[in-house]
Amino acid sequence: MDDHQTLLSRLAQPAATRIVLLVLDGVGDLRTAAQPRTALEQAATPHFDALARRSSLGRLVPVATGVTPGSGPGHLALFGYDPASPAADIGRGVLEALGLGLEVTPQAVAARGNFATADAAGRLTDRRAGRIPTAECERLCARLNAAVAAAGLPDLGVAVHPGEGHRFVVLLSGNDLHPALADTDPQQLGVPPLAARALEGAAAATAARVDRLIAVLQAAIAGEPRANRVLLRGFSRLPHLPSVADLYKVRAGAFAGYPLYRGVAGACGMRVVPCGRRIGEILPVVAEHWDDFDFFFVHVKQTDQAAEDGDFAAKVRVIEEVDAALPALLDLGPDVLAVSADHSTPAPMRAHSWHPVPLLLHAPATGFVDAGERFHELEAARGALGTLPARELMGLLLAHAGRLAKFGA
Amino acid sequence: MDDHQTLLSRLAQPAATRIVLLVLDGVGDLRTAAQPRTALEQAATPHFDALARRSSLGRLVPVATGVTPGSGPGHLALFGYDPASPAADIGRGVLEALGLGLEVTPQAVAARGNFATADAAGRLTDRRAGRIPTAECERLCARLNAAVAAAGLPDLGVAVHPGEGHRFVVLLSGNDLHPALADTDPQQLGVPPLAARALEGAAAATAARVDRLIAVLQAAIAGEPRANRVLLRGFSRLPHLPSVADLYKVRAGAFAGYPLYRGVAGACGMRVVPCGRRIGEILPVVAEHWDDFDFFFVHVKQTDQAAEDGDFAAKVRVIEEVDAALPALLDLGPDVLAVSADHSTPAPMRAHSWHPVPLLLHAPATGFVDAGERFHELEAARGALGTLPARELMGLLLAHAGRLAKFGA
Repeated sequence: MDDHQTLLSRLAQPAATRIVLLVLDGVGDLRTAAQPRTALEQAATPHFDALARRSSLGRLVPVATGVTPGSGPGHLALFGYDPASPAADIGRGVLEALGLGLEVTPQAVAARGNFATADAAGRLTDRRAGRIPTAECERLCARLNAAVAAAGLPDLGVAVHPGEGHRFVVLLSGNDLHPALADTDPQQLGVPPLAARALEGAAAATAARVDRLIAVLQAAIAGEPRANRVLLRGFSRLPHLPSVADLYKVRAGAFAGYPLYRGVAGACGMRVVPCGRRIGEILPVVAEHWDDFDFFFVHVKQTDQAAEDGDFAAKVRVIEEVDAALPALLDLGPDVLAVSADHSTPAPMRAHSWHPVPLLLHAPATGFVDAGERFHELEAARGALGTLPARELMGLLLAHAGRLAKFGA
Repeated sequence: MDDHQTLLSRLAQPAATRIVLLVLDGVGDLRTAAQPRTALEQAATPHFDALARRSSLGRLVPVATGVTPGSGPGHLALFGYDPASPAADIGRGVLEALGLGLEVTPQAVAARGNFATADAAGRLTDRRAGRIPTAECERLCARLNAAVAAAGLPDLGVAVHPGEGHRFVVLLSGNDLHPALADTDPQQLGVPPLAARALEGAAAATAARVDRLIAVLQAAIAGEPRANRVLLRGFSRLPHLPSVADLYKVRAGAFAGYPLYRGVAGACGMRVVPCGRRIGEILPVVAEHWDDFDFFFVHVKQTDQAAEDGDFAAKVRVIEEVDAALPALLDLGPDVLAVSADHSTPAPMRAHSWHPVPLLLHAPATGFVDAGERFHELEAARGALGTLPARELMGLLLAHAGRLAKFGA
């Protein structure tokens, strides 16, 4: 915990109020000569406009000035964690697993896998096995799982999950696993894959178990023409984060249609509630659970997807879809509603970016109504909330919900 | 000292300039659907308006985003201290004493007391003695003071001061007192009060002295039907803060009508000048002492009082009262005049809040004149000073007064 989180945690107290954090993934966009209006400016948003006139606007900086966050750090910051802290680091293996929709238990160790090609002498000739098609990857993963089952490794649970092309994920379970293992990918050709190597003494037994596993996997595909080696990288475990329940005295529910976000929310101690992927499918589930939680994380993915595709018009349509759903959300009567993003994804860049994200904060009883007329980046830059580190948002939400005791007397 | 204060302290230099910090306690307020204008917006303030047009506006965040400060931390921040630092923590006993208007010397140890009820076996049956009336509390405190005088405790000065209802304050004086004592309130019924227990070895002798004192106090009221026990909590001493004179090379005078603010200012090394409670009574005293100081802390309490009562109209009237007094203050010719608050107290909330407070900074020779037309929250949010941690205000004041040397060459 950083100082800010420690302070919040000290002051947090339960209350009979409800907070909704609506994350429009990657909604922040650019105004450029070629794209003179952002998607939020372009969209017809009568409900957001009306809400903005009864709310405060501002902006959040996800990680640090100029730093483009991945989805993990972007969300951790929104939930009040310092995303730059090593304690909040979500390893690549775990992230890949969450991204595939796998359930990652706190004890599991995850690694990203590549199929690769080696010559008869065992030297790598292609670290991506010629980028085999996904169907081929699925066939090979089934073979790996069968080999593991046949080998009956006594002290290691193994599940191999195919990804896209040459990529897969290995989930390991068992007693006393330790994730401090170096990659077996040598990052160069002409040499064999590396053995699993412990980066700390405590991981030595795990390294030995992983080496036995690799031998089984390797043997299962030795006869394949291309994909005859496996390379494992990013061994990691879910970070051990203090839960939002302990930190902020909230019962938190996560309503997200995509696995990565469910995974991150789960890692923060939120209860992940199954729901659909579009806002119109998610909100009825939120309504059903209105009495079960007092913090609702609602995640809309399609803004980011459209922007990653460079599809400005699609991004505008998603914003209008959320706008149309807004009355149903407001009808629930949240004491605090925040609308923001985990990062910007400007359509012209087709990628995440470092630009601050707009924030709308609506709290009928305790929120300062500023002069904002619409919810978009330019208005947000002038808003009364100012521009804040994203990890300070949680303090604002709790404060507006009457959930922070006074500091000192 | 935090890094910022250390830097200021290194650069601070004397100058023939005068700074006035006018604190309108809790002046920051809300715009909501139900209260569409803040008190500062609503008030007719021709003098503040004219001053705003010759000044810079901005906002201060008293402690941290979302954190509602008590009056102690709010003022410490305005004086340049990090209010979240343990070194700046003002204990509950001291605060209660300051709040009662008692003078707390740097060596004194203060504790909050409760009268409580115990049964014949000495087990607590009511930790608040049935919330006895204040007059009863005063009678009992007089009896306690008489018992202490009769007992003639050799090495401990004791003064018991009645508060409201069942509450009182004990001020201890004597050589080598140490405040690290645990509460004697067990926080539960059915058990006797706890003995005084040292939390550190250095407090062992003080614990023994306090136990002898408690025996005297207990004996004095043993025959009372309800208030037959005392519970002591929050043993504390004035925090040992570096003085503003040492830190900033200023001779500082505090002009505050209420004890808590005089106490906090005194703890920061300001000379507390006796004065009345309304701005019209305070300013003539400031004028009398214009040659005695170069930093003037002027405190107006009534803005906060009105807002704590939820009396918006009264808050507006206090602001107009200060506005009417403003020419007299400006006539003194301060080189720097800052008007701000220790925290917001929105009338609809009837309590302190976390919302940033507006700041007006007027420095005819060195201040940037921004586009602000009036002094209120919304203009302040757009002001050229931006939104700063309150503890950075002191640097601004010193800088505008020519009291900070250049950093580096």
